[in-house]
Amino acid sequence: MTRENTKVVLVRRPTATPESGDFRVEHEPVGAPGPGEVVVAVQTLSIDAFIRTILDERAYHRPVPIGATITALGVGRVVDSADPALVPGDAVVGPLGAQTFATVPGAFLRRVDDQRRPLNAYLGALGVTTGLTAYFGVREVGAVGPGDTVVVSAAAGAVGSVAGQIARIEGGSPVIGIAGGPAKASFVVDELGFDAGIDYRGEDVAARLRELAPDGVDVFFDNVGGEILDIVLDQIKERARVVICGGISQYEHMDDVRGPRRYLVLAERHARMEGFAVTHFAERFAEAEDALGTWLDEGRLRVVEHVEHGIERFPDALAMLMSGGHMGKLLLEV
Amino acid sequence: MTRENTKVVLVRRPTATPESGDFRVEHEPVGAPGPGEVVVAVQTLSIDAFIRTILDERAYHRPVPIGATITALGVGRVVDSADPALVPGDAVVGPLGAQTFATVPGAFLRRVDDQRRPLNAYLGALGVTTGLTAYFGVREVGAVGPGDTVVVSAAAGAVGSVAGQIARIEGGSPVIGIAGGPAKASFVVDELGFDAGIDYRGEDVAARLRELAPDGVDVFFDNVGGEILDIVLDQIKERARVVICGGISQYEHMDDVRGPRRYLVLAERHARMEGFAVTHFAERFAEAEDALGTWLDEGRLRVVEHVEHGIERFPDALAMLMSGGHMGKLLLEV
Repeated sequence: MTRENTKVVLVRRPTATPESGDFRVEHEPVGAPGPGEVVVAVQTLSIDAFIRTILDERAYHRPVPIGATITALGVGRVVDSADPALVPGDAVVGPLGAQTFATVPGAFLRRVDDQRRPLNAYLGALGVTTGLTAYFGVREVGAVGPGDTVVVSAAAGAVGSVAGQIARIEGGSPVIGIAGGPAKASFVVDELGFDAGIDYRGEDVAARLRELAPDGVDVFFDNVGGEILDIVLDQIKERARVVICGGISQYEHMDDVRGPRRYLVLAERHARMEGFAVTHFAERFAEAEDALGTWLDEGRLRVVEHVEHGIERFPDALAMLMSGGHMGKLLLEV
Repeated sequence: MTRENTKVVLVRRPTATPESGDFRVEHEPVGAPGPGEVVVAVQTLSIDAFIRTILDERAYHRPVPIGATITALGVGRVVDSADPALVPGDAVVGPLGAQTFATVPGAFLRRVDDQRRPLNAYLGALGVTTGLTAYFGVREVGAVGPGDTVVVSAAAGAVGSVAGQIARIEGGSPVIGIAGGPAKASFVVDELGFDAGIDYRGEDVAARLRELAPDGVDVFFDNVGGEILDIVLDQIKERARVVICGGISQYEHMDDVRGPRRYLVLAERHARMEGFAVTHFAERFAEAEDALGTWLDEGRLRVVEHVEHGIERFPDALAMLMSGGHMGKLLLEV
């Protein structure tokens, strides 16, 4: 049986929002895996903001070369293996790339139990870029504790929606989400159990925040940057922690980032702004997965998925992520 | 004996660099102190950057009202007392204001021993806004330890010059100072024992920093903000600490601050930016003064003073501070 791989490659670096002309869909036969490699039939890809950043030449992480398949995390099933540790049929998660059949070193992949949970959960609730990122950001960097007033930006997004729920589990109160549009602002309250939602498009964020958190903010979990970051900085308490998880409002113009103009409040209020990437906690992934799995089982954590379909829609899914046209975890079933 | 007080009051809020027309020198008779008050003959004033910030209406700290005497720390000698805790002849330090005779509650002042050290030392090496600020910033916020690569901006200024020396005492190596002009860049090495000095006016700071700290920066003690902050952020290591002590490059346009555009490196490198004001450590001032005093006695710490003379020169001294036309601790003997 000859398999055909369909992959999405980068043909041009986007200058702002990625356009369809920046990508090309290519087809190629799938060969036999080399020593140590496996072939994975990709089921689902995780559409993450970091993908936008690595399309730029001057990326924090390794940029995608022109002509190469776009990097992406995914889940799938091994169909051919030259790695003794994996056999056809194994469910795996790892950097599979934007394609339908991934040929990758088995060592890059992790075998997961898809009997116990749906395979997509390993990209969402238990996903490195989602559940695990929220877990370490809230607990380790933000150090959220009982009674802390917590604010989360991009609260209806994948990481934000989990971060707010973990903040509540850790005793944060109130937990306030900032999101774009009234539907998302309601969603975080009605579906995810946040104490309040602020629609930054339709509401005066500064005024609403003063109302909801009159004594100020202890922890701000920021995925957005830009103006929102400044508005919240203005209302932090002494000894506040500002967690820099991402800055999606800046990713389309990284050569002209708006830095936080109110950063001097850090000095006024003896507060800190600390960033992290989930990879900094790699040695503790098992612990996080255990905790997240328990909360899922107990019904204390909910991950809402938005699923798009078809590998050729990868560019559209990425554009949707950047414009916030979804709620919860954005996935692409290929 | 009727004493006459000469004071400098604010008549107009400066828009950028303070001008002489923003201030007025006034004279008034000195009355008897009210209950709990003392009259202090001011000897010397500490010219600090925070003074510039409180001339603005929207100041972090309480703004100076129009018509009021400019707030400033000073040292002097009690000449009249209605506070049982202080008697004429006592040497004191505290918020005396820009004037020759201060009538203030005795409780605002601290008596100091001017037999053991020159009175001016209580504004410089042992001063709250200088020695103590550097002490807590380097030790507590920056947590400088042996082998840390440390960079200090405004390194020839009051706080920076002490911060760099404390960083060396704590084992920081190399300790690199950034200052304006070749004289200051040499001064921090030749007079203060820094390992290296960079002249940001004449040298390519990024290139020099790559040369001097090829593995990156562990601790950046920043007094300046603006472009310098971005250049150093670019070269921080994983787990670096960026200490926000001040942002003097921004103080003359606080309505249009340049935020750190490279702040997203905090996420890339799991680094933190933490601010503080010395007042956050008020309960530990005695500890800091002991340590600083010991280092002074042992000759391990040196504070160079630049002294201007005459209360009417207060506006000029402040302008000198803002333009960096001095080295070390800027004092005004009234």
